[in-house]
Amino acid sequence: MWGLASRLTSKLTTALILSTSLVVSAAIIDTAHAQSTTDTEKHDTSPGGQYEPSMDVIGDEDMQQPGTKPGDPVLSEAEFKRANKIYFERCAGCHGVLRKGATGKALTTDITKPLGFEYLRDFINYGSPGGMPNWGTSGDMEVDDISLMARYLLNDPAQPPEFGMTEVKASWKVMVPVADRPTKQMNSIDLDNLFSVTLRDSGEVALIDGGTKEIIKIIKTGYAVHISRMSASGRYVFTIGRDAKITLIDLWMEDPSPVAEIKVGSEARSVETSKMKGWEDRYAIAGAYWPPQYVIMDGATLEPLKIVSTRGMTYDTQEFHPEPRVAAIVASHYHPEFIVNVKETGHILMVNYEDIKNLKVTSIEAERFLHDGGFDASGRYFLVAANARNKVAVVDTKEGKLVALIETGPKPHPGRGANLNHPKFGPVWVTSHLGDETIALIGTDPDGHPDNAWKVVQTLEGQGGGALFVKTHPKSNHLYVDTPLNPEAEIASSIAVFKIDELGEEEPEYEVLPIGEWSGIDEGVRRVVQGEYNQAGDEVWFSVWNNAAQESAIVIVDDKTLTLKHVIKDKRLVTPTGKFNVFNTRADVY
Amino acid sequence: MWGLASRLTSKLTTALILSTSLVVSAAIIDTAHAQSTTDTEKHDTSPGGQYEPSMDVIGDEDMQQPGTKPGDPVLSEAEFKRANKIYFERCAGCHGVLRKGATGKALTTDITKPLGFEYLRDFINYGSPGGMPNWGTSGDMEVDDISLMARYLLNDPAQPPEFGMTEVKASWKVMVPVADRPTKQMNSIDLDNLFSVTLRDSGEVALIDGGTKEIIKIIKTGYAVHISRMSASGRYVFTIGRDAKITLIDLWMEDPSPVAEIKVGSEARSVETSKMKGWEDRYAIAGAYWPPQYVIMDGATLEPLKIVSTRGMTYDTQEFHPEPRVAAIVASHYHPEFIVNVKETGHILMVNYEDIKNLKVTSIEAERFLHDGGFDASGRYFLVAANARNKVAVVDTKEGKLVALIETGPKPHPGRGANLNHPKFGPVWVTSHLGDETIALIGTDPDGHPDNAWKVVQTLEGQGGGALFVKTHPKSNHLYVDTPLNPEAEIASSIAVFKIDELGEEEPEYEVLPIGEWSGIDEGVRRVVQGEYNQAGDEVWFSVWNNAAQESAIVIVDDKTLTLKHVIKDKRLVTPTGKFNVFNTRADVY
Repeated sequence: MWGLASRLTSKLTTALILSTSLVVSAAIIDTAHAQSTTDTEKHDTSPGGQYEPSMDVIGDEDMQQPGTKPGDPVLSEAEFKRANKIYFERCAGCHGVLRKGATGKALTTDITKPLGFEYLRDFINYGSPGGMPNWGTSGDMEVDDISLMARYLLNDPAQPPEFGMTEVKASWKVMVPVADRPTKQMNSIDLDNLFSVTLRDSGEVALIDGGTKEIIKIIKTGYAVHISRMSASGRYVFTIGRDAKITLIDLWMEDPSPVAEIKVGSEARSVETSKMKGWEDRYAIAGAYWPPQYVIMDGATLEPLKIVSTRGMTYDTQEFHPEPRVAAIVASHYHPEFIVNVKETGHILMVNYEDIKNLKVTSIEAERFLHDGGFDASGRYFLVAANARNKVAVVDTKEGKLVALIETGPKPHPGRGANLNHPKFGPVWVTSHLGDETIALIGTDPDGHPDNAWKVVQTLEGQGGGALFVKTHPKSNHLYVDTPLNPEAEIASSIAVFKIDELGEEEPEYEVLPIGEWSGIDEGVRRVVQGEYNQAGDEVWFSVWNNAAQESAIVIVDDKTLTLKHVIKDKRLVTPTGKFNVFNTRADVY
Repeated sequence: MWGLASRLTSKLTTALILSTSLVVSAAIIDTAHAQSTTDTEKHDTSPGGQYEPSMDVIGDEDMQQPGTKPGDPVLSEAEFKRANKIYFERCAGCHGVLRKGATGKALTTDITKPLGFEYLRDFINYGSPGGMPNWGTSGDMEVDDISLMARYLLNDPAQPPEFGMTEVKASWKVMVPVADRPTKQMNSIDLDNLFSVTLRDSGEVALIDGGTKEIIKIIKTGYAVHISRMSASGRYVFTIGRDAKITLIDLWMEDPSPVAEIKVGSEARSVETSKMKGWEDRYAIAGAYWPPQYVIMDGATLEPLKIVSTRGMTYDTQEFHPEPRVAAIVASHYHPEFIVNVKETGHILMVNYEDIKNLKVTSIEAERFLHDGGFDASGRYFLVAANARNKVAVVDTKEGKLVALIETGPKPHPGRGANLNHPKFGPVWVTSHLGDETIALIGTDPDGHPDNAWKVVQTLEGQGGGALFVKTHPKSNHLYVDTPLNPEAEIASSIAVFKIDELGEEEPEYEVLPIGEWSGIDEGVRRVVQGEYNQAGDEVWFSVWNNAAQESAIVIVDDKTLTLKHVIKDKRLVTPTGKFNVFNTRADVY
């Protein structure tokens, strides 16, 4: 039944560009995240379902079927389990675990029952121009399963189990106690130029030497690692799997290895470590999609210290939301604080970690559907996309206040964004969009350029929609824009590059780098995703991302000449997506 | 079926004193609160159920019967409604709206189903020495209702409706806009010596002149007003009903009248107003039992500005609690903060109201089952009872930190406590106990008396258990201790008075004031409850509280001579309980 997955992906990305609705783009946006890594995970289910056994899917034994009311279609226990699994894999990302709706519509029984079984069945089968995938006619879901899902939706949603301190602690393992770890670097790796690369479909990361381009090690992690973050010292790598599993890797060991792991829930996207002066490497934090909560941990052991629920009121209508998922988390440089973005309620939380037994949290009313973002060049302002609202929210991390909400274009997806010094407008922060070809430049210098601050000062036109990440470097004259989710294979497999010193011109032009071609791979869509600089800022790494059965690669571009410098190919490089240079990640250089 | 209510009450208070269990005392404690007022509401259901029509009881049309599982006993819609109503009135206070248990045991279906129908029915009928009331054999519940409740408990709890901004706003009424209110006091009442007196069973407060002892006005409010609080200026009285209705009374009007009202949920206990210098009269806050949330309002109009859910993790086991009720709230004098006590999770929240769009909240890990409390004499430290844990938690409101957790005795119930200058130990704060006759004195002067600070420095022996409120005044040499819930009528209807200058003696003795006798009432238990000083601090008012069908009174004692000064009797004084002197309440004199 998975045979037509790639055909479906293509259909979906077409719909993404054409549709005026949020739903399809949201299906993609929803799973991408703060720092980088690509994500079409809701649609790009791996062929053969080969990763299912390793996934700790919501909907296992713990999940209780809710009571049925008279008139509800009855599901057997086996059917309920299967429907739950399908719902988690295909539907929950957009519609929410509790079916309250997010970027997809609400599917609670007050809505589904009046629609009735036949309507639901047909809607799942045929999809809609509004963005609902055509699960049946695409061949991706069997007739029986479609009928099952329609019946499932007529029953109350099953609430997945909670995951409190008992469960979190039970999942916690310290493989190498702190006392047994080295006190200095025991290997000769140039750690600050190391890359941690997500191997999405194999549930691993590859550690790759930025100088030699050799794979140093492949490390087993959580499923579909969403991001890697580095401790402030650069010693530790934290990875977070979609299954909410954190793996802590100690780069100082002779053979860099996982030293601790933990699960913070059953689904998650974000992890970060304390970076404030005096607090380096002290704490880690992770945000979960389910249960909606964040967990503060010891930075060296992952010992869970504090769990805080994010369930609460939406910022605008002030009604209770049972499932406000935690999106991007970044660490403040101005206060001992984590900046935690709560998607469904639209609050940005400044979580002060100075005294976690007397935890101080500032809840900033921002905008709903917060997703990914990063700092401006000064590190003072945090800019985050409220994607389904076409806005970027700006927080002053020094004052702990919202300073602006900026309309940027359809479905901004900045990753962490890109900071550059514009020849005309001064310091700007850049985001591309999933919904169209525009790239928005926002002034970020209220002192030096007050007239431009927190406005879209320029809108560039790139290759097309389906863009996930923009990238530049303080030493570079180039701004790279990927378009991995564009329906045109040629666009999806290439990168647009703008010259920063030409951005003052009327209509700045871009050069196209055919990265997919340069990879030498001749199968698959060769989606090119997420540029990442080396430490020196003189070369950019791109993932050429095919599906798990096909060849993938990493292509390295010389930043000065915009020419091919190197291709990394290796059987072990299964579906590479996000790449995280240790120095740039720990120092927030982007 | 209500005929034997008072017999039941007597049985219960006996059980309270005798039982080593938490449950019965908790049934009473649970409903008493921060500042004062007595509360045996769970048991003392008014004869004839005459107030039911005015009660906005959870379990009305909005409340959906949850799905039944195969094997669950089926309830008709009418039965479900009736069971829900009974549950709310009789059971929810101890067992929680969601039946997760609090001071009573958990009654979720994973627990009730293995027990089975007959066990539940008999338990409800006969009660238990552990403290469960004998609803059947006491004659207070009919056989049919007992059977109904046993069946009800075998079904999943019905979740009462949420009460978000839409519902809160819909309940909001401004009867007199600010522009139409006077700009100075238009009457000749000595406002600072006015008393706002809860008439529990009539859903009213009486405004009584502290000088003439005349009832100025009876004002319709929410049901069973839990407390009155005064704005910092003394101009406004805020009352909060058990039905979560707040009434704002403007004392400056020629005829002091309600000027605004609002409901913050379907069940509530606490209200407070901003008292920090520069913020006087600016904001009000109320805490709800259901939904578990607090609401910040404009102080002059009650316009709802911000709703914050308290649902979250318990402080100790860090597991999600769906129903953490808001107990006492007080206003800090050191910061623009409200101090909000969350019962089930054991967090004390310092809610900073300086910028409510960027709301800063410090969650202090304290102890579970927080209930009532008050400041020390300096106003810097807040002491609050964690009643079911036999402890008092102390928060430094200047630093926003927990400074101590003190074991005081069985079920402390301080009201707001009493501050006095002990001849031997210096400044102490006093609490009596529901569970026994002891009165605990806690040192509160870490600078002047560091060895005594945050320790029980002395334990006095009073008349008996069932004490709700202690009282003294900075100008007085007397400490009054009531015992309204003591099973002995003589003890319940009298007050013990200790002389402060004799507290240095080995075993300080107390004098007994037969307040019930002094009232001249010769029917009922004549429970004497909650001493309240006038502004001058030279007389103390006590409620003589009978049931609604009997005569009640207020007895005023001359503080210097401990002799009867005056009795207020009036047909309109129906079940008077809490009394709030405007000056003492607004200035936190206790």
